[in-house]
This record gives sequence, structure tokens and C-alpha cells, in this order.
Amino acid sequence: MSDSPTLSRRAVLGGFGVAAVAGAGGFAMGHRSAEAARDSNESDLHLAAAGLVPFHGAHQAGIATPVQDRLLFGAFDLMTDDRQALVSLLRTWTASAEALTQGRPVGSDDSTPEAPPDDTGEAMGLSAARLTLTFGFGPTIFTVGGRDRFGLADRRPAALVDLPAFPGDDLDPGLSGGDLAVQVCADDPQVAFHALRNLTRQAKGTAVLRWSEVGFGRTSTTTSGSSATPRNLQGFKDGTNNLRGDDATSMAKYVWADASDGADWMAGGSYMVTRRIRMFLETWDRSMLSDQEGTIGREKLSGAPLGGTAEHDPVDLAARDAHGQLVVPADAHIRLANHATNDGVRILRRGYSFTDGVDQVTGQLDGGLFFIAYQRDPRTGFIPLQQRLAAHDALNEYIVHTGSAVFACPPGVAPGGWIGEGLF
Amino acid sequence: MSDSPTLSRRAVLGGFGVAAVAGAGGFAMGHRSAEAARDSNESDLHLAAAGLVPFHGAHQAGIATPVQDRLLFGAFDLMTDDRQALVSLLRTWTASAEALTQGRPVGSDDSTPEAPPDDTGEAMGLSAARLTLTFGFGPTIFTVGGRDRFGLADRRPAALVDLPAFPGDDLDPGLSGGDLAVQVCADDPQVAFHALRNLTRQAKGTAVLRWSEVGFGRTSTTTSGSSATPRNLQGFKDGTNNLRGDDATSMAKYVWADASDGADWMAGGSYMVTRRIRMFLETWDRSMLSDQEGTIGREKLSGAPLGGTAEHDPVDLAARDAHGQLVVPADAHIRLANHATNDGVRILRRGYSFTDGVDQVTGQLDGGLFFIAYQRDPRTGFIPLQQRLAAHDALNEYIVHTGSAVFACPPGVAPGGWIGEGLF
Repeated sequence: MSDSPTLSRRAVLGGFGVAAVAGAGGFAMGHRSAEAARDSNESDLHLAAAGLVPFHGAHQAGIATPVQDRLLFGAFDLMTDDRQALVSLLRTWTASAEALTQGRPVGSDDSTPEAPPDDTGEAMGLSAARLTLTFGFGPTIFTVGGRDRFGLADRRPAALVDLPAFPGDDLDPGLSGGDLAVQVCADDPQVAFHALRNLTRQAKGTAVLRWSEVGFGRTSTTTSGSSATPRNLQGFKDGTNNLRGDDATSMAKYVWADASDGADWMAGGSYMVTRRIRMFLETWDRSMLSDQEGTIGREKLSGAPLGGTAEHDPVDLAARDAHGQLVVPADAHIRLANHATNDGVRILRRGYSFTDGVDQVTGQLDGGLFFIAYQRDPRTGFIPLQQRLAAHDALNEYIVHTGSAVFACPPGVAPGGWIGEGLF
Repeated sequence: MSDSPTLSRRAVLGGFGVAAVAGAGGFAMGHRSAEAARDSNESDLHLAAAGLVPFHGAHQAGIATPVQDRLLFGAFDLMTDDRQALVSLLRTWTASAEALTQGRPVGSDDSTPEAPPDDTGEAMGLSAARLTLTFGFGPTIFTVGGRDRFGLADRRPAALVDLPAFPGDDLDPGLSGGDLAVQVCADDPQVAFHALRNLTRQAKGTAVLRWSEVGFGRTSTTTSGSSATPRNLQGFKDGTNNLRGDDATSMAKYVWADASDGADWMAGGSYMVTRRIRMFLETWDRSMLSDQEGTIGREKLSGAPLGGTAEHDPVDLAARDAHGQLVVPADAHIRLANHATNDGVRILRRGYSFTDGVDQVTGQLDGGLFFIAYQRDPRTGFIPLQQRLAAHDALNEYIVHTGSAVFACPPGVAPGGWIGEGLF
């Protein structure tokens, strides 16, 4: 194999040469789009047309970004207490995220036949598919068992609390927690897999993947005026009243942390809560349509709140029927989750459906909702909301939370910067 | 909820009224496409444009059909020895497959608030996404431990052998075997999930889901002239020399069973082998590019066979370099898998990449290739091929087979018929 065309392969596997890419027999469509887009100094609109979401900005991409079709979520455990190793990993991941989200492979232009390729290759020829990588820090990077692992303990934001135990939780440690999180979203699951795999590989010696979850169907709309609200695995439209990422006023009020929140390095960031919510689908499927609708508080077909006629009709929590009964039952999910019931607090949901095959114990489908929510402060966001839901929600008959995690997602990165640099 | 619009909901949840659907606020895009397509007595081309693959035909769809983007594979165990229960299930599944593949929900037009909806609903509003459902019978429906469960033992095709043990197999019974198989392929994973879930639900009391596998990236091209060969998780193009579903001569020769094969009820059917092939991705990623290319026998970037320059160059198994060494190594995967090495035998591959998260024992990614192959007879197809590969393939250093199954997929169904009717 000494005769193999090392130069052209190196150039393209390394991935940074327009000419080499264009000359390589039509390879690496994503690379070509990315290069073309950069060269023309385009607007975000042109980037979007090429399947590219900008990496740099005041906020990390993947929060306000219009939700992509697929998710691969990864949580990592750090295998070191060496602060420089952590910083080095974050710098490497930043460079990789810059490349991957712009349709380029990871690594540098030094591939040879006598070394492993920098990039694993399975995304060659695919577009960037609106890939975003969103990074977060778990509480355990600050302190573990009272130990200040990285000299960061006094930098821990007050808002990054450990989530309390909620009634009914049945959490699997193997699906919960983690020192670092990477939310990978893309319209193509192979692009998402490729990204998380290469980050995992680059972490070798510093961090290992603790758990991951594949999301196959988005369950939220996060953009105003977008066409249809997706349905979750209970068959109901989910996210009708979600915050919209393009509603800057609401995002500033409910989602983006600012310096007044007590941790200046988190200004422009957000706090992410993940909950793996398994649905007892067989039980749900055997319940009457009227019970399903009463549990949720909406009509299944139209998505209209009970008492309304169209999906986006306002929810009237006070309405009563001719018999004096609440039209939206007292324990209906949309009543308890509604911001009117929760001191006006709102969160940005960004969840996905999942299926992990057959539960070998029960023989039932292991599937449900991988819930992701962003908020300015979990102490006023997810935590009181979930305390209310866990205590009273009619939906609890049909679900159980099997995974849980919370992460501080730092603000976005400027060119030349790196993820979380303000923390160090 | 006595005031809820039962009539229109019933009509649309039941799903069989064009007027009702069109009148329901733009719901059920898939249903509308299906109805419109049927009403206009269209050609297959029009069906395809609407995301519809015809269900009826001489062969089951999902074998020669151009490969869709996503897979959900389900294997079921029968919980009964009652032949009529099995027949009833097959009739029900046939009716559901006719509906689902044409973008309609399962069940009949009798939904009421006081009953569970016939259809679980999560595919409402989605197109049919080229959904196909392909059904197969495992060896265990004929005999289990010598017992003739359904009075079918003498109908077992000679070609439906139990797969032998292969060197290196590490099979998980929870990912292997099954009495019945349903290969669900679609371009939208939520459409695929919806289909398998509803079939599972309809099987209640007769069969339970034994195992399932989600495939997120197709690894084969099955149509002549299609644009690009997809890459597997080793980063290599996979399926360059695959059979093409639109090559009728080859399909007849290698894939479709005929009456001369000894089981007349299988004429027009095919035998499906599934193998869950886990890849040791971390080990692979640490190996030199030249080792990777020597293991496969192709260049990673171009997909060209070693010694060639373009992907579709003929594989020259005899070529030697200036030092007299074989250009395609003796143990290279493409040499051992090539039909020239296997008495000319060919199979139709239709596999997908999978990832099942983190292996909690090793901490490594549990991902790889869910291999599916169709053939006229496994005794001359997959079995001798795999015996050769298992013994000699250089790729064995990087993979292990963790699941295995074989199924007899009966021929297609005419309108009014049902899957497998020729067997009973």
C-alpha cells in the first residue's frame, strides 16, 4: 500500500482544503458546502441553507436554535482531577465543535497511512445536517464528596443545585448525572453519532462516556409560527405552549442566565435539566380516549385544550361544565404544568422521544420522552414545577422518571475562545 | 367531555374518510396523500411521490424496495400453540400493514371516547415515509424441542435451517431468534416506531416482542445507479458490490425462492438472516489507516478496491505488487466476502448502523452493524459465506456477532389475501 495516494487522502481526511476536496471525486459534500459558505462571507440564512448552524455567538447553539429532528445526548465522567487536562479537553472539544458544525471532520491535516485517521469517517459525504453541540458542566466538576476536584468549588453557581429527590423517581445511576454533558442535535442521526463518537475518542484518558441516549422524534416546537407541533409517544401534540427560541424577550427573562444571577461566568448561558421519562405505553394504550384526554387536558386529535376547539386556543383553567366540574381536570397535566399554576415561571423544553427496545424484566417496550429543559435557574424553573407534577399529575400513572441530570451550560464562544473559558 | 366532537374525531382517528380528514383542520397529511393516491388509481411513481410503497404484490415490500433511511426490527415470541390464534394475528397484521404503509392508522372506524383509540396516534400528521413491513417466520414456529406446535412441521422448508454456531459468536439470546419477525423500514423513525408499536399491541395475548433493534443509518445501496454508497460506522463505504433490488435477473437467481426449492408456499418469498454485529469502535479508531484499509481491502476515502482508483472499479483478487504480495490481502474482508471466493453465491444485504449507548461492563460504545441479508437459500448463501468469514476474516479482530436469527419471509400478498396464507 505504499503506492496509495497519500497526499489527496491526507488532504481530504484532514479536511481543510477546498481544492483537495473538490478534486476528490465529489466527496465530502458537507465540507464543500461549509467551505463555500465561509468563503462567501455569508449570512446565517445562507449557512442554514447549507445545513450549517453558526457555532460562535453570545449563546451556545442548540438552545434557541430551531429544534432539529434527532438527538444524541452524551454525559461524561472525568477520570482525572488535573485542571489542565480538563482545560485541554475543553479546548479540543471546542475546536472539534467548530469543525463538525461547519461540516468539516475533526483533527488536523496530518493523516498518514501509518497513523489512525483523526476523523472516524462515517460522516464523509453527509451534510452538516444543522448539527449543534451544546456543552454543560455537572455539579460534580465543582465538588465531589466535599472535595474540590479542580479548584473550582467557589465558582459553582448557586443556581446549579443538586436536583432533589422527587416522589416516584426510579432513577438509574447509569442513566443519570455526569461531570460533562454534550447535547448533540442534527437532522441526520449518523451526523450526530459521528460527532459524539469523535468527542468521546478525543476525551480518552481524560473523560469517559457515562451514558448516552438516542432521541428519534423531537417533541417540541421552539420556533414561532413553525408548521406543526410534533406528537410524543402518547400520541399527543407536545410543546404547544412551549417558549420560543426566537422570542428574545422571553428567552432573556426565563432562559438566559445573567451576571446578576451570581455567577458572572454563566452570563449568557443556561441551566439544562434532563429527565429520562419512561412511558408505560401498554397501559396508556389500554386506557380510554376520554381518560387520555382528561389526563393531558387536551383533545388527542386537534391538540385543543379541553373546552377549546383549536390547538392554540388559550387554556381556560377556570372553566366549568354544566355540572360545575372543571373542564380541565384538577390533576390534568396541562393545568399543573401551566405557568399560571407555577408563579408564571416558564422553561424552554427541547425533548425527544426515545426507544431502547424491550425491557427484559417486564417484556414491555422501554420507550418514552427524553425530556430536556433550559432555564435561567432550576430553583425557580424545573424544580418547583416537577415538585408539583410529581405530587399531583394524573400522568404519573403512565410514566416514571428513570434518569436525571442537571448541567450549567456556559455562554457561547467567540472566535478564538473555548467552551467554559470564563469558569477557569 | 360529553361535548367533545366525537364524530369528527372518530372519523379521523378511525381514518377512513377523505371528507372527514380534509375537514379536520389539515390533519393527517399521510392519510390525505394515501386517499388521494388511491382515488386517482395512480402508478407506483405517484405512490412513491406521496411516500407510499405499494403493499400488495408478488413479493413482500422491503426486500427489493430501495432502502429507506431508518430501521426498526422486531422479533416476537408466540405465547400460544393455537393455530387459529396465529392465523388471526397474521390476518390482523396484514390489515394493519395495508393501512400503515398507505399512510392510514390501524383499526376500524369505531373509536369513541369510552374506548382506547384503535391507533396510538403518534404518526398522525406524518407522511407514510416509504414505510414497508416485511414479515418472516422463524424455525420455531414449525418445531420447538421436537414438538409440532401448530401442525406445521411438515411444511417447514428445507432451506429454513437453524443457523450453525460460527467461530467467535457471542450471541445474546435476548437479541436472537424469535417465532415471527417484522422488519420495519421507513424514512422517518417515528413512523417506523408507530408501526411496530401498533403491531405489538395487536399481538397482545398471542405474541410478545422478544427483542428489537433500531437502525439509524442504512449501510447498503440496493438500487442501480443510486447516488452514493453509504458509510458504516467504521467509516467505510458499505455495499458497493451489493445486489440491486431492481436487477430482476439477479434477484430471481439469488434472492427469490421458487417452488423448485421444495416449499411451494415460499415461492416468491426469501430467507432473511439477521446478525447484530457489534464493532469494537475504540480499537478500530486506534488502528492505522493502512491497517483499516488492508482489513477491508478498500481505500477509506474513495472506496476503491486496493489497487484500483475508483469505488466501482472491479476487484482484482489476483493482483500482486512489485514485491509479489497480494494487493488485496489474503484475509481482507472483500476478498473473503466476494462472490468469486464463494462459488459465485450472492446475497442481498439491507443492513443498518445501530448504537445502543454505553456498554456498562466495558464503558465502550455499544454500536455497529445490524446486518440483514436476503437470499434464496441460507445453506448456499449466508452460511458458507459466514463460515469462511468467521474463520479467516481480518475484520474479526474488530467485530463480534452478538445477535442472530433466520426467518422465512413468505411471498407477497394479493388484495384480500394475508401474510403467510400459503403456509396454512
